[in-house]
Amino acid sequence: MRIIDYQHALKFITEKEIAAMEGETLSAKSKLVNRTGPGSDFTGWVDYPLAGEENIKKITAAARRIRENSEVLLVIGIGGSYLGAKAGLELLNPYFGKQGGPEILFAGHTLSSSYTRELIDYLQGKNFSVNVISKSGTTTEPAIAFRIFKKLLEEKYGEEARERIYVTTTIGKGALYGIAVENGYEMFGISEDIGGRYSVLTPVGLLPFAVAGIDVGAILEGAASAREDALTKPYLENDALLYAALRNLFYRRGKTVELLASYEPKLRYFGEWYKQLFGESEGKDGKGLFPASVLYTTDLHSLGQYVQDGERILFETVINFEKPEKDMVLIREEEDFDGLNYLAGKSLDYVNRQALKGTVLAHVDGDVPNLLLNFPEISARQFGRMVYFFMFACGVSGYLLGVNPFNQEGVEAYKRNMFTLLGKP
Amino acid sequence: MRIIDYQHALKFITEKEIAAMEGETLSAKSKLVNRTGPGSDFTGWVDYPLAGEENIKKITAAARRIRENSEVLLVIGIGGSYLGAKAGLELLNPYFGKQGGPEILFAGHTLSSSYTRELIDYLQGKNFSVNVISKSGTTTEPAIAFRIFKKLLEEKYGEEARERIYVTTTIGKGALYGIAVENGYEMFGISEDIGGRYSVLTPVGLLPFAVAGIDVGAILEGAASAREDALTKPYLENDALLYAALRNLFYRRGKTVELLASYEPKLRYFGEWYKQLFGESEGKDGKGLFPASVLYTTDLHSLGQYVQDGERILFETVINFEKPEKDMVLIREEEDFDGLNYLAGKSLDYVNRQALKGTVLAHVDGDVPNLLLNFPEISARQFGRMVYFFMFACGVSGYLLGVNPFNQEGVEAYKRNMFTLLGKP
Repeated sequence: MRIIDYQHALKFITEKEIAAMEGETLSAKSKLVNRTGPGSDFTGWVDYPLAGEENIKKITAAARRIRENSEVLLVIGIGGSYLGAKAGLELLNPYFGKQGGPEILFAGHTLSSSYTRELIDYLQGKNFSVNVISKSGTTTEPAIAFRIFKKLLEEKYGEEARERIYVTTTIGKGALYGIAVENGYEMFGISEDIGGRYSVLTPVGLLPFAVAGIDVGAILEGAASAREDALTKPYLENDALLYAALRNLFYRRGKTVELLASYEPKLRYFGEWYKQLFGESEGKDGKGLFPASVLYTTDLHSLGQYVQDGERILFETVINFEKPEKDMVLIREEEDFDGLNYLAGKSLDYVNRQALKGTVLAHVDGDVPNLLLNFPEISARQFGRMVYFFMFACGVSGYLLGVNPFNQEGVEAYKRNMFTLLGKP
Repeated sequence: MRIIDYQHALKFITEKEIAAMEGETLSAKSKLVNRTGPGSDFTGWVDYPLAGEENIKKITAAARRIRENSEVLLVIGIGGSYLGAKAGLELLNPYFGKQGGPEILFAGHTLSSSYTRELIDYLQGKNFSVNVISKSGTTTEPAIAFRIFKKLLEEKYGEEARERIYVTTTIGKGALYGIAVENGYEMFGISEDIGGRYSVLTPVGLLPFAVAGIDVGAILEGAASAREDALTKPYLENDALLYAALRNLFYRRGKTVELLASYEPKLRYFGEWYKQLFGESEGKDGKGLFPASVLYTTDLHSLGQYVQDGERILFETVINFEKPEKDMVLIREEEDFDGLNYLAGKSLDYVNRQALKGTVLAHVDGDVPNLLLNFPEISARQFGRMVYFFMFACGVSGYLLGVNPFNQEGVEAYKRNMFTLLGKP
């Protein structure tokens, strides 16, 4: 089944214009897969889903231990060491209550003292483990959090603390690697050629997923199948390439904001992950689509007015799942006080689906091009497909834009100022 | 203490240009407070904080009942009947664990069948009450949810169900009013001259806040003090007017995106509330700033690269709290493996504050104008001040932009299409 459906873009861009992007897009793809473009030192993720299998046994064993001895797994990380795991957990866990296994909480993604203090209080009396994720071990936010929660573990468990610390870092390099070796913490590697925002399919994401009881093998299988499609299909049948080409076409026509929309609230953090992926890959040299995300129909009653009738700087990319996880039939009321009896016998998901269709048409009428991305269902396998699809499209799209999609020099600017203000030696 | 600090905008806009906006801004303000502008039928919120006191006794009494007999309060609403309450609850509740009182959950803000089904399961075996919020009672999303959860209450409690349903609606009008009268549900009024996105200081927000144990009197006092400032202070000392003028100046210089930033994760839904307030008020007639929000430092490792170095279409508005709710001192480690010992003896909030300062300077260097909005602390009173400040600034800003800030005709477009697809008679 095809992922991309661009019929609702054809009011704005012709099939001919899309076809005319073939050469440029294939050349961008070639830069990515043949590692000939700028930043090619950081394209290890392209083939990683194939290698990932090796890690699964070790990850599964660690996850089993954490599930047995911990009520909470505290994941310490920021940016790509946070958003991918958070996105997958939100998407694949139930909305309410807990799945089996420990609660998974995050730290080191904020400098909020209130958050950190309350988290310390919350952990009192609970058995917990820590998974600290950082390539270098010296990024300020997670390094501070690791100090704090390592100490908490040591106060609580003494010598046993070291068995509750799981380190995900660059093997053989950096401060975190050093202390892990010294203390005998269990370690998981991040390849040096995979940057944070492209790392969710490595142990960065897979260990938290496994602890949550998610089938990490299925995630990698989904990713591998998306990789196969992205690498082998010809341009006009290649969903990731078409998505990369189309978003660049829109950008060249003055659309400066891409709005990622979905109709399942579970996609909230997938939207955040997407914003880092594209914003950090493309937002440079004074260029790039500004990435934003919305959850419909909720946000039709918030940003909907703007999308319909504000500045015409937007295009929308809508993630659609063919099948809901759960559904229910709407019933007839004896007294039709709210006028909803016309929906009796229809399912709630059917109504949600008509909202999607109606919204796409309304926004296209309002001169907002719409792309649909179709996935069969919410599942571990499809999550793997989705993240690989977006990562591959992002790499190609960045090369089409003419930037290096794998660096992030702009992130250093605030750090330099902060270090000066803090008097860092 | 002043709210707005625009020193970091002066690289882009001169004091003279700001002063030159006085006439135009005062005229926009006059339209708002004298009810002479378009949409003036919906400006009841301008004076509402003064009238709100009357409601407090009734709200407090209902809240006490709900706290006594319910483990969950289910608030049913969408848009302005959802985001204001959600924003206040997130800001004023602790990060972890529960404050005293029932858990407050939301429905009717989504058509997701999975969310709804899981919520039904989650409520099994729990005592709960429902607060349904809708001016008309026929908005599709909350009307569907009210049918579903009213039935659940009736199955569980029989006749007693009617004592667990609290209706917030237009008194004397509409489907929800009708059924509330018929069944004797307790009712709270929304004035006809207050639109959804300006309604958080009415029972729409106040009842959920009171159930959560938040001091609603303090919220209204804060709002009343912001109202006094907004109505009486001269232009150059009037924070709300200056904010309205500055954002229009930026917009006229080609900044099409406003990014609301804060350094406390608790502001997440305040950002969502802000997006509806400004997006729905100004996004019309092909105009308006696109509102986006970020939580720093988290999102410095996500959108930070774009802000620093992407398309120069952004300006930033940073909410700053002078005092943290909780703080902690960072300690020295014997072995300085992560190089953080230079922070020993400093507090975590101090570090967060230097991150804020360093980021403002970095982004200004990157040609992103920054406005700071200072509030003394996170509290019920300051929440009241914040929401009134933003609402007043939004009304004035919309008039400066030349739109009607109180309608939302664009929201109807998706509804019309959806109704057609659903075969609504």
